[in-house]
Amino acid sequence: MYGDIKLYAGSASIELTNKVAEYLGVPVNGRDVVVFPNENIFVKLHSSVRGQDCYVIQTTSAPVHRNLMELLIMIQTLRLDSAARITAVIPYLCYARSDKKDQPRVPITARLVADMIEVAGADRYITLDLHAGQIQGFFTIPGDVLTAFHILVDYLHSIKPRMHSPVLVTADLGFAKKGRNFAAAIDAPMAFIEKRRVANDAKARALTIIGDVNGRDCVLVDDEIDTGGTMVEAVNILKENGARNVYMVFVHPVFSANAAQRLASLPVTEFITTDSIPIPPEKKALFGERLKILSVAPLLGEVILRANQGRSVGEMFNE
Amino acid sequence: MYGDIKLYAGSASIELTNKVAEYLGVPVNGRDVVVFPNENIFVKLHSSVRGQDCYVIQTTSAPVHRNLMELLIMIQTLRLDSAARITAVIPYLCYARSDKKDQPRVPITARLVADMIEVAGADRYITLDLHAGQIQGFFTIPGDVLTAFHILVDYLHSIKPRMHSPVLVTADLGFAKKGRNFAAAIDAPMAFIEKRRVANDAKARALTIIGDVNGRDCVLVDDEIDTGGTMVEAVNILKENGARNVYMVFVHPVFSANAAQRLASLPVTEFITTDSIPIPPEKKALFGERLKILSVAPLLGEVILRANQGRSVGEMFNE
Amino acid sequence: MYGDIKLYAGSASIELTNKVAEYLGVPVNGRDVVVFPNENIFVKLHSSVRGQDCYVIQTTSAPVHRNLMELLIMIQTLRLDSAARITAVIPYLCYARSDKKDQPRVPITARLVADMIEVAGADRYITLDLHAGQIQGFFTIPGDVLTAFHILVDYLHSIKPRMHSPVLVTADLGFAKKGRNFAAAIDAPMAFIEKRRVANDAKARALTIIGDVNGRDCVLVDDEIDTGGTMVEAVNILKENGARNVYMVFVHPVFSANAAQRLASLPVTEFITTDSIPIPPEKKALFGERLKILSVAPLLGEVILRANQGRSVGEMFNE
Amino acid sequence: MYGDIKLYAGSASIELTNKVAEYLGVPVNGRDVVVFPNENIFVKLHSSVRGQDCYVIQTTSAPVHRNLMELLIMIQTLRLDSAARITAVIPYLCYARSDKKDQPRVPITARLVADMIEVAGADRYITLDLHAGQIQGFFTIPGDVLTAFHILVDYLHSIKPRMHSPVLVTADLGFAKKGRNFAAAIDAPMAFIEKRRVANDAKARALTIIGDVNGRDCVLVDDEIDTGGTMVEAVNILKENGARNVYMVFVHPVFSANAAQRLASLPVTEFITTDSIPIPPEKKALFGERLKILSVAPLLGEVILRANQGRSVGEMFNE
Amino acid sequence: MYGDIKLYAGSASIELTNKVAEYLGVPVNGRDVVVFPNENIFVKLHSSVRGQDCYVIQTTSAPVHRNLMELLIMIQTLRLDSAARITAVIPYLCYARSDKKDQPRVPITARLVADMIEVAGADRYITLDLHAGQIQGFFTIPGDVLTAFHILVDYLHSIKPRMHSPVLVTADLGFAKKGRNFAAAIDAPMAFIEKRRVANDAKARALTIIGDVNGRDCVLVDDEIDTGGTMVEAVNILKENGARNVYMVFVHPVFSANAAQRLASLPVTEFITTDSIPIPPEKKALFGERLKILSVAPLLGEVILRANQGRSVGEMFNE
Amino acid sequence: MYGDIKLYAGSASIELTNKVAEYLGVPVNGRDVVVFPNENIFVKLHSSVRGQDCYVIQTTSAPVHRNLMELLIMIQTLRLDSAARITAVIPYLCYARSDKKDQPRVPITARLVADMIEVAGADRYITLDLHAGQIQGFFTIPGDVLTAFHILVDYLHSIKPRMHSPVLVTADLGFAKKGRNFAAAIDAPMAFIEKRRVANDAKARALTIIGDVNGRDCVLVDDEIDTGGTMVEAVNILKENGARNVYMVFVHPVFSANAAQRLASLPVTEFITTDSIPIPPEKKALFGERLKILSVAPLLGEVILRANQGRSVGEMFNE
Repeated sequence: MYGDIKLYAGSASIELTNKVAEYLGVPVNGRDVVVFPNENIFVKLHSSVRGQDCYVIQTTSAPVHRNLMELLIMIQTLRLDSAARITAVIPYLCYARSDKKDQPRVPITARLVADMIEVAGADRYITLDLHAGQIQGFFTIPGDVLTAFHILVDYLHSIKPRMHSPVLVTADLGFAKKGRNFAAAIDAPMAFIEKRRVANDAKARALTIIGDVNGRDCVLVDDEIDTGGTMVEAVNILKENGARNVYMVFVHPVFSANAAQRLASLPVTEFITTDSIPIPPEKKALFGERLKILSVAPLLGEVILRANQGRSVGEMFNE
Repeated sequence: MYGDIKLYAGSASIELTNKVAEYLGVPVNGRDVVVFPNENIFVKLHSSVRGQDCYVIQTTSAPVHRNLMELLIMIQTLRLDSAARITAVIPYLCYARSDKKDQPRVPITARLVADMIEVAGADRYITLDLHAGQIQGFFTIPGDVLTAFHILVDYLHSIKPRMHSPVLVTADLGFAKKGRNFAAAIDAPMAFIEKRRVANDAKARALTIIGDVNGRDCVLVDDEIDTGGTMVEAVNILKENGARNVYMVFVHPVFSANAAQRLASLPVTEFITTDSIPIPPEKKALFGERLKILSVAPLLGEVILRANQGRSVGEMFNE
Repeated sequence: MYGDIKLYAGSASIELTNKVAEYLGVPVNGRDVVVFPNENIFVKLHSSVRGQDCYVIQTTSAPVHRNLMELLIMIQTLRLDSAARITAVIPYLCYARSDKKDQPRVPITARLVADMIEVAGADRYITLDLHAGQIQGFFTIPGDVLTAFHILVDYLHSIKPRMHSPVLVTADLGFAKKGRNFAAAIDAPMAFIEKRRVANDAKARALTIIGDVNGRDCVLVDDEIDTGGTMVEAVNILKENGARNVYMVFVHPVFSANAAQRLASLPVTEFITTDSIPIPPEKKALFGERLKILSVAPLLGEVILRANQGRSVGEMFNE
Repeated sequence: MYGDIKLYAGSASIELTNKVAEYLGVPVNGRDVVVFPNENIFVKLHSSVRGQDCYVIQTTSAPVHRNLMELLIMIQTLRLDSAARITAVIPYLCYARSDKKDQPRVPITARLVADMIEVAGADRYITLDLHAGQIQGFFTIPGDVLTAFHILVDYLHSIKPRMHSPVLVTADLGFAKKGRNFAAAIDAPMAFIEKRRVANDAKARALTIIGDVNGRDCVLVDDEIDTGGTMVEAVNILKENGARNVYMVFVHPVFSANAAQRLASLPVTEFITTDSIPIPPEKKALFGERLKILSVAPLLGEVILRANQGRSVGEMFNE
Repeated sequence: MYGDIKLYAGSASIELTNKVAEYLGVPVNGRDVVVFPNENIFVKLHSSVRGQDCYVIQTTSAPVHRNLMELLIMIQTLRLDSAARITAVIPYLCYARSDKKDQPRVPITARLVADMIEVAGADRYITLDLHAGQIQGFFTIPGDVLTAFHILVDYLHSIKPRMHSPVLVTADLGFAKKGRNFAAAIDAPMAFIEKRRVANDAKARALTIIGDVNGRDCVLVDDEIDTGGTMVEAVNILKENGARNVYMVFVHPVFSANAAQRLASLPVTEFITTDSIPIPPEKKALFGERLKILSVAPLLGEVILRANQGRSVGEMFNE
Repeated sequence: MYGDIKLYAGSASIELTNKVAEYLGVPVNGRDVVVFPNENIFVKLHSSVRGQDCYVIQTTSAPVHRNLMELLIMIQTLRLDSAARITAVIPYLCYARSDKKDQPRVPITARLVADMIEVAGADRYITLDLHAGQIQGFFTIPGDVLTAFHILVDYLHSIKPRMHSPVLVTADLGFAKKGRNFAAAIDAPMAFIEKRRVANDAKARALTIIGDVNGRDCVLVDDEIDTGGTMVEAVNILKENGARNVYMVFVHPVFSANAAQRLASLPVTEFITTDSIPIPPEKKALFGERLKILSVAPLLGEVILRANQGRSVGEMFNE
């Protein structure tokens, strides 16, 4: 219907693209990405994409701006070469936390990023577990906003027999509703960690646990881990309140600054995440066996296949 | 800087516009709104708006589509008459709960509404307590998304001496984070009501209270009350769990179906809301003294004044 | 060429869509249209439309704004679900009489409606007998503006043997040119009813007949009948001037207010119209045998078929 | 409010611009318009227009495409020089008769022209007696569509004492409704000339007069005269039917081909038109005293003044 | 992939379109182009283009504005008739020398032309040897900017045996870099003619030859010849400096004013150009055997074929 | 006319902005630019810009993508805060060398950058010595493309007495025409260095000098110096061909990789450039007295002043 699938790998998602290609049984298409001494990125496609159904897979993790720009340049290059349809596949969308003006005179950078992707010429996009579902409304073009929820829940089910009266915990009240979905899926009660500014002290925060964690295994869930600061606090207060084992579950392993070191030193039984962002080997090594990376490649591959064939994505999830 | 303020009242916000005009000390500008027998709405401005700074105040409560269309027609009329700047002032923005695709093959109607307002020709918009702050990112034009938070909190402070160890409760986990801000502002702990689907029964929901409400006065907060169904359940479970008095706080009194009747029959001490949506006298009467309506007119008026003069809105809130 | 035809029925055109589906031999596709207590319309498609050629049939008669909004929401839903092509099929386009600024400070609402249809995401539109052909120029997207002219003329030919020296009459000078086409098609002379404001009286109008109607059967033609006021006057003056039988011909039976009652009480031999707008059974009953409804379903069906197959629509009319 | 008025004359409206400038008491701004041997038009403004309120007066009569292109280039030049506001003043808008698709596979060139004016960068437009009022809806930008109606009617009033039982005649049924306005304004009855294709002859047309002209002075009205063919036929049939004097009234003297010669040879008492299009002296000479040209310069000048000052245009006409 | 190729000939490229059609083995599609007495151009397609892959070939040489407008009207007509894809094939793009603001208050007309082509509705464009390659960046739509370089170089190779120590000369420093490519391709050294304004004299220019031409055959290259003024000067100074034979090579034979006469009278051995612009027979006759016209029809035909089939154009040139 | 000037400094142009502020006698406005550990840039303005005339000065030198993104975020922030007008002041525009597709399947990144600046919300832009003037046509918004030409030429005049029979040399044929302007301004002859690929060797280049440099002082001019590779070759071949002193003149000191080291080691008498890009002190130190940096701050300041006041920029240069 839309011509053949042409898969292109951005520099930040080489490995993931290979896995997707493997799932699909198609090659990754050749392109040169040259970085000149003046930092300018230059792209040249090895072969024509006229009338083809093109997919560029590029996560926008660090180096964020370079990776984003490379994505945009690849999209424009495909457009100027008269591709029939261009889909930006962005496993982790940068700037998604800048999604509203919660104070005056600040940007909504996620909308800017959406605008940039559209102005470069993308016809569609595919992404995974946006910080807020509403970001889908920032785009004018249609897209598939997927979730690793089912992948993570399936894994949690597999290890649930090992857990002792598990409770689902969120450390960010903004994640409370999504946390409830995890809790319902694994049939566990919930608890919340509320963080509140301490009066007369700009930096201090008081943490409170709402709900019951004493003597329980805690499944601490969030969409991404950035510096890990909140998670460090969360694990500590859980432990102080009598939590037994702690399992940490998150879709996007951003791991900024020394997050990997800080997390690895925590009394956490297992860290469960995905390959939406590649974790460098030296960071992986810090966790040893405790780090479980579930691949989103089959999910992305299947969605690309269905998008290309004009088949339903929703029915993958019985929806 | 932008010419004189020209204030126009949509049919759904006549009274509110009068209050705003009073605050500003300017007249409400004349316009005919004729509804023909074929339901078509026709607008004619009484005087020219060339080069003027125009504000149309129209809430988009029921009849929703008629009110929305009237707003759009007024905007287009102002545009075609060469207004210098047109600001849509929408105290309650309809369809704001349709803000994301949480299942496949459904709309994001809030984005559609934003697109409609822009295509009609609005240069800016002012609205109040959007269901999700991210909806601001659905607009390409700039806007002021205000909040009645300070108005409500000021009132809560004034009645707090009457309360007995108050606890802030939210009945919707999606409102947990905003609830936290209320809790912090009135220095109260929090509790959550979690609603979860009961297995094998499409309609039944099990409610759980997370946090402590026994013997306490509960301040139940939400952004809007629609049919009131969730609130009825919430008050009941709070009472079952030993809550003393219940105060219900919400910005937008949508009051669909028989919401007013259902709410008025609840054992609630006080219903605290705003005039973002006019409540018909017969519904008001059901509540007697228990209904406290705080006016957002001074807030809207001050923001219009500052927008017209090119002065900061943020500094109204020390931001 | 464009994938399969996917036919969707708006709530206002269920019956017509069924007839079109029958003509095409395809099913009407399932979708839920839920109206919440707060009047918000929610749409969910039963199956995916990725890469399909979608047609939403929705007339925009009363309730006008609700029907228009439902149409827009369905279009956006199809777009966000990545339909290959979306055609809005609007047998009767609302607000078409607000098509120019014949006085200052008024809207051109037909343009606004066109903009709304485009911003929702329609790729094409199909409509029938626009009040003014120029409205096609309000759209940027291409469309098929069809006419029931041939259907009506064929019927007039079939009953012409019954008529006595027929004359074609228009009661609106703005319809004079189209009236001429009817006159030429049935080979009859013309007469005009001119309505002119009476000096010093805002409401009074003087009617004059220009041309000869005495002793003749009058075929009174217009594009739509709204309240029927003009038609009542027209029939009266025709009768006063010696007209024999009167046949009333019009494409769109808008029938606002008590139009059906007023018309049914007139000394008119036959009312000839189409099903571009469904007439409620109780209104139909008022006319008895005198109401002839000619279906536009085969016309719409054939055009949809040709649009889907990339074949000429013009050659349906030897053009 | 919008900076000073900067008036620019297109090559086709030098004289009219001078008159407008005189009315306004402002100079015509200098610009070079160079036509290179390869026909390319080059424009250079003599002074900066940053932040100014610019008006380009250019009628789009023959040479049509060259004049249109010059207009577009002037608009773009003003835009690139950062004008605050650019108004295209187009006394006669070309291609206005290509305003709808009355057959398949043809253009709507008037919409194309509107699009071209907008894409060049005009913020507003001013024009005069569009062939169809709906063309205003082809523009997205606001505009003032003026009419010479009052100017023409005032003149007709001044000569009415000379007329013998005048009747208002239109030779184009598409102009019937506007003709009615003239008839009402001079308090005269109407007659129509209906032209109908003769069966089995592609070119022949049969003309019929509907209404009474015998022994009367006929005021034959239209919006423009192109080749004059219809007018020649009209005058002949009027005379054959006993008309006394004929007055011909039309806004735009397009005078294509040998129209001036053909008209001048007709038994017409007076030709009443405007200077929306300049008539070359040699053509003027053919008419002698019988040609009355009423200037639209004061009308355009007053509208420009009011647009610049942000005052109502409608109130010029008590609307 | 895109439906069948539908080839349309603009009035300025009838012969070239026939050659392209011959190359492709497809017919040229019928359309009427009527020019009314008021100069308005009217287009009617003979058959429907719904869902077809349409190509309009129209060079924009003199009469420039008429040809450009005809192109735009044809594009809009195809769009309104629901063509699947419309490609404007413009062998010579007018106004390409107005591509930058090298002084204040002037237009960038090439950008305006690009905007006009896009707003008319073209999906793609194909053109040949733009004055500056950057003009491709003026378009938002993708396009194929082809070059006759290989055609010209192949011919130069074929006649090189006849040349005596050839040197490649450019008379415009702005063409120096492209000239270098010709020089490299035929393995010849370069020389430049520098033109510099003489102080205190607005019109006088001093010419200098930089590089060695004495006793050599000069290949004088440029992208187009307009009035030929620069070329006349160039040939003269080359001869004065001892040049032997002069070969003149240029892609676009614009031949404005009396260019053909002036050139034909020069001591030039051969004039080598293409049929991107048709040269009238009477002008051709002036050159006799010295004029060599190389056809770009096979190039255009092959590119159209590949665009239709979704195959690479780059690989035609081993790129 | 446009409110007060509000000057904002991007992180890459702090010093230049201070100089511009000093020229204008206005303060630099406060804003926080926070870079989070995840690299995300966050901007907060210290005060409101409603209705103000805002200028963001940010050069887009290394780190290129970070600086570009910061510029875009600042523009969006100003837009969302309802600035009246936003001008992006970009002394050096990145990616300007990617301005055309000189081979298939590559981007035109300069157009992408222009699109990004526009989609972020800039109303105007100011930049300096674009690699190709045509890039101005990539923008839809108006802008001032300035040149340091007059600044550089003034300086060259001041040192010309020290030069011995100077010749103007360009090492890039694409700069030949601009080089001619320098040559004419300092009344010197020209010479060119032509670089040509050596057959059968992908990397080798043969350099030729066209024109006379023996015994002369060479003024080697270019728009920017990136890695300096071409300049190293140029100086060497000039020296080999008998050049006396070499002066190197260039607007933008990009100085990628080890350019500063390579240049500093060349036998060049003086390096003359501007502060469009800040040169780090350690690089400056390498050149000692031989590096002459001419400030563009007065030029930018004067243009900002005139833009704000709506006065001509062209007349600064007697144009």
